[in-house]
Amino acid sequence: MIHIINGPNLNLLGQREPQIYGSRTLEQINEGLSTAFPDASLTFFQSNHEGALIDYLQKAGFDPQTEGIVFNPGAYSHYSIALRDCIAAIPATVIEVHLSNIHAREDFRHTSVTAAAAKAVIAGLGPEGYAAAVRALTANGK
Amino acid sequence: MIHIINGPNLNLLGQREPQIYGSRTLEQINEGLSTAFPDASLTFFQSNHEGALIDYLQKAGFDPQTEGIVFNPGAYSHYSIALRDCIAAIPATVIEVHLSNIHAREDFRHTSVTAAAAKAVIAGLGPEGYAAAVRALTANGK
Amino acid sequence: MIHIINGPNLNLLGQREPQIYGSRTLEQINEGLSTAFPDASLTFFQSNHEGALIDYLQKAGFDPQTEGIVFNPGAYSHYSIALRDCIAAIPATVIEVHLSNIHAREDFRHTSVTAAAAKAVIAGLGPEGYAAAVRALTANGK
Amino acid sequence: MIHIINGPNLNLLGQREPQIYGSRTLEQINEGLSTAFPDASLTFFQSNHEGALIDYLQKAGFDPQTEGIVFNPGAYSHYSIALRDCIAAIPATVIEVHLSNIHAREDFRHTSVTAAAAKAVIAGLGPEGYAAAVRALTANGK
Amino acid sequence: MIHIINGPNLNLLGQREPQIYGSRTLEQINEGLSTAFPDASLTFFQSNHEGALIDYLQKAGFDPQTEGIVFNPGAYSHYSIALRDCIAAIPATVIEVHLSNIHAREDFRHTSVTAAAAKAVIAGLGPEGYAAAVRALTANGK
Amino acid sequence: MIHIINGPNLNLLGQREPQIYGSRTLEQINEGLSTAFPDASLTFFQSNHEGALIDYLQKAGFDPQTEGIVFNPGAYSHYSIALRDCIAAIPATVIEVHLSNIHAREDFRHTSVTAAAAKAVIAGLGPEGYAAAVRALTANGK
Amino acid sequence: MIHIINGPNLNLLGQREPQIYGSRTLEQINEGLSTAFPDASLTFFQSNHEGALIDYLQKAGFDPQTEGIVFNPGAYSHYSIALRDCIAAIPATVIEVHLSNIHAREDFRHTSVTAAAAKAVIAGLGPEGYAAAVRALTANGK
Amino acid sequence: MIHIINGPNLNLLGQREPQIYGSRTLEQINEGLSTAFPDASLTFFQSNHEGALIDYLQKAGFDPQTEGIVFNPGAYSHYSIALRDCIAAIPATVIEVHLSNIHAREDFRHTSVTAAAAKAVIAGLGPEGYAAAVRALTANGK
Amino acid sequence: MIHIINGPNLNLLGQREPQIYGSRTLEQINEGLSTAFPDASLTFFQSNHEGALIDYLQKAGFDPQTEGIVFNPGAYSHYSIALRDCIAAIPATVIEVHLSNIHAREDFRHTSVTAAAAKAVIAGLGPEGYAAAVRALTANGK
Amino acid sequence: MIHIINGPNLNLLGQREPQIYGSRTLEQINEGLSTAFPDASLTFFQSNHEGALIDYLQKAGFDPQTEGIVFNPGAYSHYSIALRDCIAAIPATVIEVHLSNIHAREDFRHTSVTAAAAKAVIAGLGPEGYAAAVRALTANGK
Amino acid sequence: MIHIINGPNLNLLGQREPQIYGSRTLEQINEGLSTAFPDASLTFFQSNHEGALIDYLQKAGFDPQTEGIVFNPGAYSHYSIALRDCIAAIPATVIEVHLSNIHAREDFRHTSVTAAAAKAVIAGLGPEGYAAAVRALTANGK
Amino acid sequence: MIHIINGPNLNLLGQREPQIYGSRTLEQINEGLSTAFPDASLTFFQSNHEGALIDYLQKAGFDPQTEGIVFNPGAYSHYSIALRDCIAAIPATVIEVHLSNIHAREDFRHTSVTAAAAKAVIAGLGPEGYAAAVRALTANGK
Repeated sequence: MIHIINGPNLNLLGQREPQIYGSRTLEQINEGLSTAFPDASLTFFQSNHEGALIDYLQKAGFDPQTEGIVFNPGAYSHYSIALRDCIAAIPATVIEVHLSNIHAREDFRHTSVTAAAAKAVIAGLGPEGYAAAVRALTANGK
Repeated sequence: MIHIINGPNLNLLGQREPQIYGSRTLEQINEGLSTAFPDASLTFFQSNHEGALIDYLQKAGFDPQTEGIVFNPGAYSHYSIALRDCIAAIPATVIEVHLSNIHAREDFRHTSVTAAAAKAVIAGLGPEGYAAAVRALTANGK
Repeated sequence: MIHIINGPNLNLLGQREPQIYGSRTLEQINEGLSTAFPDASLTFFQSNHEGALIDYLQKAGFDPQTEGIVFNPGAYSHYSIALRDCIAAIPATVIEVHLSNIHAREDFRHTSVTAAAAKAVIAGLGPEGYAAAVRALTANGK
Repeated sequence: MIHIINGPNLNLLGQREPQIYGSRTLEQINEGLSTAFPDASLTFFQSNHEGALIDYLQKAGFDPQTEGIVFNPGAYSHYSIALRDCIAAIPATVIEVHLSNIHAREDFRHTSVTAAAAKAVIAGLGPEGYAAAVRALTANGK
Repeated sequence: MIHIINGPNLNLLGQREPQIYGSRTLEQINEGLSTAFPDASLTFFQSNHEGALIDYLQKAGFDPQTEGIVFNPGAYSHYSIALRDCIAAIPATVIEVHLSNIHAREDFRHTSVTAAAAKAVIAGLGPEGYAAAVRALTANGK
Repeated sequence: MIHIINGPNLNLLGQREPQIYGSRTLEQINEGLSTAFPDASLTFFQSNHEGALIDYLQKAGFDPQTEGIVFNPGAYSHYSIALRDCIAAIPATVIEVHLSNIHAREDFRHTSVTAAAAKAVIAGLGPEGYAAAVRALTANGK
Repeated sequence: MIHIINGPNLNLLGQREPQIYGSRTLEQINEGLSTAFPDASLTFFQSNHEGALIDYLQKAGFDPQTEGIVFNPGAYSHYSIALRDCIAAIPATVIEVHLSNIHAREDFRHTSVTAAAAKAVIAGLGPEGYAAAVRALTANGK
Repeated sequence: MIHIINGPNLNLLGQREPQIYGSRTLEQINEGLSTAFPDASLTFFQSNHEGALIDYLQKAGFDPQTEGIVFNPGAYSHYSIALRDCIAAIPATVIEVHLSNIHAREDFRHTSVTAAAAKAVIAGLGPEGYAAAVRALTANGK
Repeated sequence: MIHIINGPNLNLLGQREPQIYGSRTLEQINEGLSTAFPDASLTFFQSNHEGALIDYLQKAGFDPQTEGIVFNPGAYSHYSIALRDCIAAIPATVIEVHLSNIHAREDFRHTSVTAAAAKAVIAGLGPEGYAAAVRALTANGK
Repeated sequence: MIHIINGPNLNLLGQREPQIYGSRTLEQINEGLSTAFPDASLTFFQSNHEGALIDYLQKAGFDPQTEGIVFNPGAYSHYSIALRDCIAAIPATVIEVHLSNIHAREDFRHTSVTAAAAKAVIAGLGPEGYAAAVRALTANGK
Repeated sequence: MIHIINGPNLNLLGQREPQIYGSRTLEQINEGLSTAFPDASLTFFQSNHEGALIDYLQKAGFDPQTEGIVFNPGAYSHYSIALRDCIAAIPATVIEVHLSNIHAREDFRHTSVTAAAAKAVIAGLGPEGYAAAVRALTANGK
Repeated sequence: MIHIINGPNLNLLGQREPQIYGSRTLEQINEGLSTAFPDASLTFFQSNHEGALIDYLQKAGFDPQTEGIVFNPGAYSHYSIALRDCIAAIPATVIEVHLSNIHAREDFRHTSVTAAAAKAVIAGLGPEGYAAAVRALTANGK
């Protein structure tokens, strides 16, 4: 099973600054992933609560069924050392995804404290970033 | 409808360092606002949870009934980029209020990451700050 | 008596970047305040000179007739320690006002060295900020 | 009553990086404390939620039965000004405990914003740190 | 045509710190891409010279045949403002790729001055990062 | 009309550290400009007062007769945000001139807060810098 | 002639925070100096205007009658590069005096940009600091 | 044998700022420890000399009789890299103790360069901190 | 002979962000200079290679025929200490030119490491900047 | 009794960089003080050892005979928090003296950590600085 | 074989600031080395091109004949992460040499990013530094 | 006579972290030097006391018999401005030696405040560094 986890304000996709985040809703993005990976078992979770994200990551991260985690921590990426510690603590592989290119935005978005604990980071590909992460998790080897 | 939202530890008002925050409880402050603005429809919310504040702001912020939001983010003001993004994402006007003059306190309170997304900031007026914010929201035009 | 003091370049209001500062002139704003507070004794002063602002603040600040001071230090807010010391030295209550939300502009405008000496700060309410400050000064109690 | 409060990811003890955090689970540590202090009334709480920790600290902190609080804020130690304000706001004595020596780890773990509001800090003693804190709280005098 | 451009020291792949960069040579990676994308027209270039990379990017970037550019700037990523300006100046879409997760390495690798000018960044996927970038460039629409 | 405005201590030219600022007095420099541009209408102003410089810049800057302003802010260049705001507020074109190459002197002279609001900056050409600025202002186009 | 020059807010001495600045007025301090140095020719000047201080320093500094200058720049000490340049430009010897020990106050008072151009600095001796400076200037030799 | 080592100015305990450091003298504290740990062999040393502390730490640290070292480096904690290197070089276990909570005092006391080399740090427990450290050293196992 | 040297990406002038750099090509600018200075012997060089620029500067800088060098280092201005050293090493006079006003752009463009070694800097005059530099080099005196 | 204490390398006076420190030896300076203050009881001490300076300051500082201490901490001024703590701990008044104007030298000499604990600081008066300090200590009042 | 590699502007030795770099040319230094080490096989290379230095280091660094590399990276030492990566990637031992003592020059020369990847650094010995490096490389054992 | 001076903790060589500092004791290193330079008159000194090192350096540094000083300041290198001043004050030539490559270790070891006063620095050559320094001091010429 692959978990697609989205953090704060990502439930607003489609409504929020579409020139940055695109016009598709999170639901549409998730459906697109299910269609693109018919053989994968995808599970979706979104929360605005840092604690709820930690709870979920812990459970999924130690679940032997989990093949990998695609995680868009949203703004928590820039300051949540608690999420960073959580990612570092779980055995599952986590790939961090950002819809926009965080390096091209405000200075405080250039730093990702969670990224240091993830295996990889994909930023700026829009919804395609989730697909690229799923593909990398399901590829054999490495 | 105008939402009066208070963040972490503000439920302790009256009990907590009264020389800084005054001796009135949050309930008393809220009642004072209801009395001062008999024609306004005021709704009150307080939470210590960053995620719960985001949930509430999103709902209130997209509600067409909402005329404006008065928000005292408390300590989250200084590091919650998730709240900042939330304020930036919603169409409602948000005025940030601090009871104390944050510029006259510890260094780490001089920076407000949420303030950049708000329309205005009022700090140091004590409970009167909420009233000033409500008044500004109900004044016609800018 | 309540003194409304404006610092550098605020005499250009209406002419200067109206998208930031609005289209009303300082004279119109002052007249609006006189109209809004018919019972208050308001005095108006504007200068581009740091020294002249200090001279005026000292005189007004020690005048027993003074009920309070509303001060928009403009750009001096960000570096004039001399004005800060002056505000700290006088017994009158000073409320600092900024027309725009300084937290949402360039980095160097996020710091106000004068604000630490003022009782309160109101930023981003436009001309309404002066009115909110006058109201706070004339309210009984603290 | 003495409250033993643990923050984010500490429920993973025993599973998470045992070379840093040791091989005992949080439950085992808590049981060890109960055994070591048979006359003390110990209460245990753990949460990954910043808001839930604040809620609990407030309730315990104002409870007249509370003799003291032993708090391991985990990663929140490094950025949660909301927790810091909470500790400062409650009358109960709080001793901050870290299992590892935070000064000997990554740079961002050298700063504890919560520690400044606590009465004391114990770091690097492993589970023994909790016992040392309980002992300090039950010692007579301050 | 899609250009796969690699910067300094990437010609050493397979020889250089395999625990970080993997054991495949650049030639093997390039062949793997040709095999994986039989319908794409891929062109490969590697240089240790900042100036040569700029020359090539300019030519490829203005060539109407170019469908996109996959660029691993290697260490130049962290200081070459000249490469950043070049990426910003050319009309072609550039996706930046790093084999390792630069956020998990030395501090000076956390900053990418070139990334701000790229459309997207993929870091930590190993050679699969190039494939993900090619896929994103060949996907229709954005 | 073109205004040549000089800031603090520039009235000391010829007397002050001639190895840095040259041996010609401000009066001689101004006469040299009048001679070099017989067809231009040049006006000269010097003050050590930040406020007086703002007053003058405002008046000249909104005067429809003004073709341009050559401004050497002297030391105010490094900290006067009030002058910067003034330059940004006026419609006239301002070219900033420094006699010495500020980049080759003490660290605190490397930053010019006023330069960001000017159209251009010329530093290190000595008195010739004023002439170059006048020439640029009188050139047609741009 | 020895010039005793005082900067912003020092005209408030005796009124302003007496626990820091003492209870004697500037006039009393000046009279005390005249009494203590009956043979010296002392001239006194105070202004809140940075520009007026520069004007005066220039005139006094080039006056061949001037034996030395005692200068308390007050808050300008911390940011007025224009005053620093002025002190550096004049041939007269300048001794900087502060009533309080600036090293023991807020961080921003630890730096004196003017001090670097003065011959010496005396801080924390209260009014006696002026006398010590006069004595040093009148002592023969260096 | 357990060594209790105290650094600079700790010989002044009881005389020095009792509101911060308490009213007991170092001798009284040491006697209290001997009484509290009748079975332990405690040795006491105090010096104001960085070099003497290094000499002593080296000797005690390599002495096979040494069961552990309790070290209060006082102010050297904040800058003595030589002491840090010494602690790192010796095989004995060192626990760093501070009487006050250094995190709640001046900024320059928040950093402890020696702590990174110690096994653990206890700060803010007053004299009880030494006892807690002795207890931790005599506990069996780690 | 006067050398007009242009650094990285300046060969793209006319094509690259015309709103910042103008619509004239480098060739057109060079031709304009030849026309404007018919009596001067102008030589033109452009390269994207830091090393090639150093090679050229060295040769031109020691050539006794060289009357001066006009150098636009482009982005190398902000980090190439090697170019700075080269400018400092050669006896020829170098004037640094930037088309845009670097002080009004991104933060990392405010610093010029090469400027400290040049005689003068002209920024923001567009192509006219080259002409102003040539004029200054050919002016007699200074 | 007044103690004149000199720190590291001040025993080299007369030999060491006379252009900065003057040509008089420490012995000559001390003799000059004895001559200048025939009625005062002066005691002299010099050491290169931080610990010896602390020992001496403690003894002198608590000695009821001590009327004051004149202390030139030399280079220890810039980093010895142990000396700062010592000055703060003793009841005697300490005046810090520096022969040269530390504000006009290298950056790392602009900060004095010991000065914050002293009553006053005199820098740049050369040997006359000691005399000014003795005079201030023996003056009646304050 | 031992490679003696010199970076940018070192071909100017003898011509460039002889008070810093000495009066001998690079050719003379190289000849001196050949004479001093008649039994060693020395190869010499100099380039101003960062890329050419990387190319050469890679080839020499993997050549089994290479006994060691003496590298003076010149100004690239301070910013070329690409060269640092190259030194780290090659199996040959590299000793970094600087003619002058970089610690005694401008601040930006105090940091060497390449030095961290070298085995050792010799700075300030002038041409003798190369000889010391060769000697260390040819000494048996490490 | 050449003095070989070693600072804090270097008496532990052979015992202390041999993977960093090697397995030879200081005595063995010193004997090795005596053997390697039979014609040189070598004197050895080691101390953990900053003050004792200053005392010794002063005496040796002014001794006309001294041909040079080889100094390994150990950790004092990173903060002892007193040692730096001492090295600058003595006429003897000082070469600073570090056994390990300080640039490749923790950040705080990258800065050497003493190195700026030394003639040269050798770091990372292990015990061979001392020999290289002796050789450089005994070589004729510079």
